[in-house]
Amino acid sequence: MPATVKYLLDEEQIPKSWYNIQADLPEPLPPTLHPGTKEPITPGDLEPLFPMSLIEQEVSTERHIDIPEPVRNIYRQWRPSPLFRAHALERALDTPARIYYKYEGVSPAGSHKTNTSIAQAFYNKEAGIGRIATETGAGQWGSALAHAGTLFDIDVKVYMVRVSYDQKPYRRALMEVYGAECIPSPSDQTESGRAILAKDPNSSGSLGIAISEAVEDAVSRDDTKYALGSVLNHVLLHQTVIGQEAELQMAMADDYPDIVIGCTGGGSNFAGLAFPFIGNQLRGGQAIKVIAVEPKACPTLTRGKYAYDFGDTAHLTPLVKMHTLGSTFMPLAFHAGGLRYHGMAPLISHVQELGLLEPVAYDQIECFEAAVLFSRSEGIVPAPESSHAVKAGIDQALKCKEEGAERSILICLSGHGHFDMQAYTDFFAGKLVDGQYDTSELAMALSGLPSVP
Amino acid sequence: MPATVKYLLDEEQIPKSWYNIQADLPEPLPPTLHPGTKEPITPGDLEPLFPMSLIEQEVSTERHIDIPEPVRNIYRQWRPSPLFRAHALERALDTPARIYYKYEGVSPAGSHKTNTSIAQAFYNKEAGIGRIATETGAGQWGSALAHAGTLFDIDVKVYMVRVSYDQKPYRRALMEVYGAECIPSPSDQTESGRAILAKDPNSSGSLGIAISEAVEDAVSRDDTKYALGSVLNHVLLHQTVIGQEAELQMAMADDYPDIVIGCTGGGSNFAGLAFPFIGNQLRGGQAIKVIAVEPKACPTLTRGKYAYDFGDTAHLTPLVKMHTLGSTFMPLAFHAGGLRYHGMAPLISHVQELGLLEPVAYDQIECFEAAVLFSRSEGIVPAPESSHAVKAGIDQALKCKEEGAERSILICLSGHGHFDMQAYTDFFAGKLVDGQYDTSELAMALSGLPSVP
Repeated sequence: MPATVKYLLDEEQIPKSWYNIQADLPEPLPPTLHPGTKEPITPGDLEPLFPMSLIEQEVSTERHIDIPEPVRNIYRQWRPSPLFRAHALERALDTPARIYYKYEGVSPAGSHKTNTSIAQAFYNKEAGIGRIATETGAGQWGSALAHAGTLFDIDVKVYMVRVSYDQKPYRRALMEVYGAECIPSPSDQTESGRAILAKDPNSSGSLGIAISEAVEDAVSRDDTKYALGSVLNHVLLHQTVIGQEAELQMAMADDYPDIVIGCTGGGSNFAGLAFPFIGNQLRGGQAIKVIAVEPKACPTLTRGKYAYDFGDTAHLTPLVKMHTLGSTFMPLAFHAGGLRYHGMAPLISHVQELGLLEPVAYDQIECFEAAVLFSRSEGIVPAPESSHAVKAGIDQALKCKEEGAERSILICLSGHGHFDMQAYTDFFAGKLVDGQYDTSELAMALSGLPSVP
Repeated sequence: MPATVKYLLDEEQIPKSWYNIQADLPEPLPPTLHPGTKEPITPGDLEPLFPMSLIEQEVSTERHIDIPEPVRNIYRQWRPSPLFRAHALERALDTPARIYYKYEGVSPAGSHKTNTSIAQAFYNKEAGIGRIATETGAGQWGSALAHAGTLFDIDVKVYMVRVSYDQKPYRRALMEVYGAECIPSPSDQTESGRAILAKDPNSSGSLGIAISEAVEDAVSRDDTKYALGSVLNHVLLHQTVIGQEAELQMAMADDYPDIVIGCTGGGSNFAGLAFPFIGNQLRGGQAIKVIAVEPKACPTLTRGKYAYDFGDTAHLTPLVKMHTLGSTFMPLAFHAGGLRYHGMAPLISHVQELGLLEPVAYDQIECFEAAVLFSRSEGIVPAPESSHAVKAGIDQALKCKEEGAERSILICLSGHGHFDMQAYTDFFAGKLVDGQYDTSELAMALSGLPSVP
């Protein structure tokens, strides 16, 4: 039987800088706007939320931004992460495609989120911040920030989307092991949360609501900053260690991807893998097909509108131009909690508008089917979010089979599913359903987009 | 802040052979006896249970046994496993000790068990076996064999100790993702199980009972062999990749352990790490202190009797000489399900009798306290079993502090706790208790030991 092959780099090959795709884009990213004035925001506008070092990264157009040595030193515990050639999956599919996956589940908290949580905790610590408030969907980000918080001695408060809080109690337990506080959102601890609960005491929550609560927490306390696990430019930037390593590992395999695939909720793991390859293409390197995979139940890139919108439900954030379903859109309570966000990273939205990526949407059941096949071939159980990328990779490999094409496919396996086993249990028990959304609700959410001159 | 340092070997440094301590022992292991004749068993006696290649390994006294290349090729997906210097934990303890841990949680099923599950599945497949029956305690072994089964296309049936089956539903889910069948033990599917249920319909089960069920399943079907995840010589043998890699990694760190620590249920992760170092000492190398850590609730090495006993409750197995609490001893339903075995590996028992190791027993709450400190320092959440080794390592490091001694401590971190988070939740909620055992029950179990001339 064919064994999975691992391509592992030396620690010295951990990237020394993050890659900023803004340096290579043919058109600049539309500016972030102040929600009151509708004018481009200034760094000072963001200061209540983030330390200035992260704000500078948010607006930087430098191609390379140095990774601080203390951050690289922590990365070394699990980085460079392995890149695998999925020989066993290829055999199971009987495909001429070469399938590779970059596995980010090796981090202590089990996903790519640690790449940015360590960096964000470092910069906050450097700025003297002792407490961070954040939101989390499925819990990958919350546990990654809790992990970073314990390493840098920063208190972490996590507002976890209620439906995931109930579905994944062990993610919360993991945050508590790391010493963080995790409460369900909407909560009664913020005005934003209380307003939602007043309208719907049984609200299952959303990332948009949880962001409102965490932002409100941060701006209302002098000792606290806010941190976001995806969407923002600096978060995507930190994730580019994934793609930069993958470039070296594909070279070790004497190969180069024809197709690069990642799942997109806010978009950070996708961007982390894909942006270095897109950047290479923009600088005259090999052209690739890039696929962003989202759930049909929250189809931002495939069904959303490219428009200025709020990042949160209570409208506490600046306005960013992105593919959005509308900040009041409530995604169904399906399991891939990390993909339940009404918007998309502005950079990814912009990259799509530039024609540099193709979005695709899948139902959850077909993604779990793909994840089980993957697990039985490769041994690693994907997180429900990552299973979307796996599904797209399998579909591309089957297309190669149909066409007799020997393409090289690179998938981001952003995290493991150890904390998501209830979803697998439900899948086997036939309890999962492929729910989509109410189209009239979507229309209403989209009709409420803020007007921007 | 001090970052954890990783020592990672090249794939070519995965050991090419397993190390058999029997070649170096000053006195041979007492023979395994036929339960009827009380005479040493022959290889033929074991043939209903195991393929001949594993029986040969069980009785071999060769120092090195080649690892088949297909097994090494699968090991490569996650081996060599990392060895870490726990700088952050050292700082938290303010100790002059140098603490290292060998981390086996990087395998797909999350523990060291995969080192032997892959080997056992390989030899069974080579012998044309299509189905394997086994037992599991906490589920580490069951999921590791399920993983190996899916890779080698072997059906796997797992009898899981009832208390763990109820406490850890996600371990069962993991086995099902890998395509294995997992049922609670005692079950109504075997005579052994039915006999236990007749006496106690609410039996929480034990490893001894589950072994009886799996053995009965295997001997009653022509297409099925049995597999054990610990205790037996060949299982301990397969685990010696751990210690052999650790020897090279300690050399990379320009260090050598003064103290080697592992937790012991059946004893396989402990033996896997310690035996290569003990062997080195036996061949004239550096003397080391070796600590085997067990739970006070099931204190085989510290409170058991060194005597011939059955490996299972229904007395279907041969008689082995080991430290035993008696095959009818029912350990309390505490959380470290992998340590709830009435006996101990005969090789480890023998090594203890030879004065080559020191056993120590801890209560579970102090082990969870140690595990939380470890998680907050090193980021990795230990399995409850592994937390026993962590506790002993911390105690040794604190002793170094008291004595101002700069000793080098090497711990086996045999697996992660992702599937054991309910135990952490219970710990934080103050729901855990330090239950020991009923001394009169222990006396009764010991009084029932079989008489051997």
